Amino acid sequence: MQFSKDLLLEIHQQIKPFINKTPVLRFDLVDELCECNVFFKCENFQKTGSFKIRAASNAIKSMPSKYKENGVITHSSGNFAQGLACASSLQDINAFIVMPDNAPRIKKDSVLKYDVNLIQCESNITAREKTTSKILIENDLHFIHPSNNMDVILGNSTIGLEFLDEYPDLDYIFAPIGGGGLISGIAIAADVLSDKCEVIGTEPKEVDDAYRSINSGIIQYNSTTNTIADGLRTNLGDINFPIIKKLIKNIICVDENKIIDALKFFTERLDIIIEPSSAVALAGLFANKEYYRNKKVGVVISGGNVDLESLKALIN
Amino acid sequence: MQFSKDLLLEIHQQIKPFINKTPVLRFDLVDELCECNVFFKCENFQKTGSFKIRAASNAIKSMPSKYKENGVITHSSGNFAQGLACASSLQDINAFIVMPDNAPRIKKDSVLKYDVNLIQCESNITAREKTTSKILIENDLHFIHPSNNMDVILGNSTIGLEFLDEYPDLDYIFAPIGGGGLISGIAIAADVLSDKCEVIGTEPKEVDDAYRSINSGIIQYNSTTNTIADGLRTNLGDINFPIIKKLIKNIICVDENKIIDALKFFTERLDIIIEPSSAVALAGLFANKEYYRNKKVGVVISGGNVDLESLKALIN
Repeated sequence: MQFSKDLLLEIHQQIKPFINKTPVLRFDLVDELCECNVFFKCENFQKTGSFKIRAASNAIKSMPSKYKENGVITHSSGNFAQGLACASSLQDINAFIVMPDNAPRIKKDSVLKYDVNLIQCESNITAREKTTSKILIENDLHFIHPSNNMDVILGNSTIGLEFLDEYPDLDYIFAPIGGGGLISGIAIAADVLSDKCEVIGTEPKEVDDAYRSINSGIIQYNSTTNTIADGLRTNLGDINFPIIKKLIKNIICVDENKIIDALKFFTERLDIIIEPSSAVALAGLFANKEYYRNKKVGVVISGGNVDLESLKALIN
Repeated sequence: MQFSKDLLLEIHQQIKPFINKTPVLRFDLVDELCECNVFFKCENFQKTGSFKIRAASNAIKSMPSKYKENGVITHSSGNFAQGLACASSLQDINAFIVMPDNAPRIKKDSVLKYDVNLIQCESNITAREKTTSKILIENDLHFIHPSNNMDVILGNSTIGLEFLDEYPDLDYIFAPIGGGGLISGIAIAADVLSDKCEVIGTEPKEVDDAYRSINSGIIQYNSTTNTIADGLRTNLGDINFPIIKKLIKNIICVDENKIIDALKFFTERLDIIIEPSSAVALAGLFANKEYYRNKKVGVVISGGNVDLESLKALIN
């Protein structure tokens, strides 16, 4: 598939009414520590507290018209559940959200703020998929995967579009890799809009499936998910992996203690609340700063959905 | 004293190398809740975590040349201590900071990061002033008061200057009042740079000295200081009060529980860490939103120096 600037602009135009243009923040302290110019694209300040509303808004806006009456379905225990709940409500489309029954009360509540159908199932992938299938068939719904879906990926490309529109001369954009939907969208934008901007993937060493996937050329899986970056425990998919394989040359794997250090740094030094998954990108830059000296480096903060109690426990 | 745009621009120019231009953040959620357009000027992202570096930088830059060799002195247990320590270090001027001996370790450490002289004294105003006088005389130093000093006030005017330069059509700017140095600076900028922008003072009801001072026409004092907004417990001074009396028409006094609600809102909904004193301005807007419907309202977030432990204890 070929992507053009016009396509990305069109997508941005169609989801603009439903999203925030998020701010780009700069900190002298970070520039000094990294010896380069760092620009933070703050999706933690996005509606619903993460970038997922971009993906969900575009997937709903682009859905086949035959499903518009019946609605959409996804399974997610995290930010995409909230993003789809908000996006569907803003576009007046029915939404069914399948969540594990042991998901934290706070996550269920943040979905139930919107007028959507929350369906609970047992907490394993088989139960999730089975429940989703059953409801999808019964109600003739459009399924939207949180990361392995082209409209989701293109929705996420608008982060790169806004970023490069404001700072066209970025040399690099650092972003976390979990399911692959975020970084593939940003990589498409950088590929289309910049001659030089390279997108760098960052992931916890504990779940280094993307690193191994790129090196081996086929999708690899994680045998354990022992990382505080809970949003990055998922695997790549057959739709986003070819894009990642083509456009991402470099993935940095980060130790857990470095993720915690970065999370602590954001909280205590930069006064921003971010979720653990979002600390991985800056941790990756900190650990490899000698390669980026004097460069213009964008860092995507993917979200800020973490409660203070958990945050405190993580950084203490 | 007459102030001109040229003067404010000149001051901004002379302190620019030592400060950050802080970002202005917007949140759809806040606009919806307040039914107006709200713009947050984020001095919590300022160097040293508060606006005080602006004041300190200007006071040092403008100090009588005869003191340049010997240096400056202040007494402060809070943000100004840190601001002056950083500013003096950046301009290579000796600084003596008098702090009460019971000040938290973290505040002492944040001053000692810079090459300054930290002098500890007993924790009462007499001891503070006596110690300051003694060292001032012994070393022939230039005294800089944290809020009641014209160079401090003019340094703070650069917040209003940057704010109105970026958003020239603000109808209002909400700011907290403690010692009066912040709001008098912003009021000067609004008076000089805008035909319509009105500056609204906000303070905790528990320390409503500024409200009573404006109403009575003479400086009033607080008999108790029972507020979580620890930066706002101080009183106005003879240099800033005439400016406040002339330029500020409206001061909103806010209940403690509303300050806590606003602090919680910043932390949990906006993902920004601010100090309790900074929550007062938004709390004041929330409590009176019917008067500002459809207006463009600036809100100054004065600082973010609070540790997570205290923050959690305050909002729980």
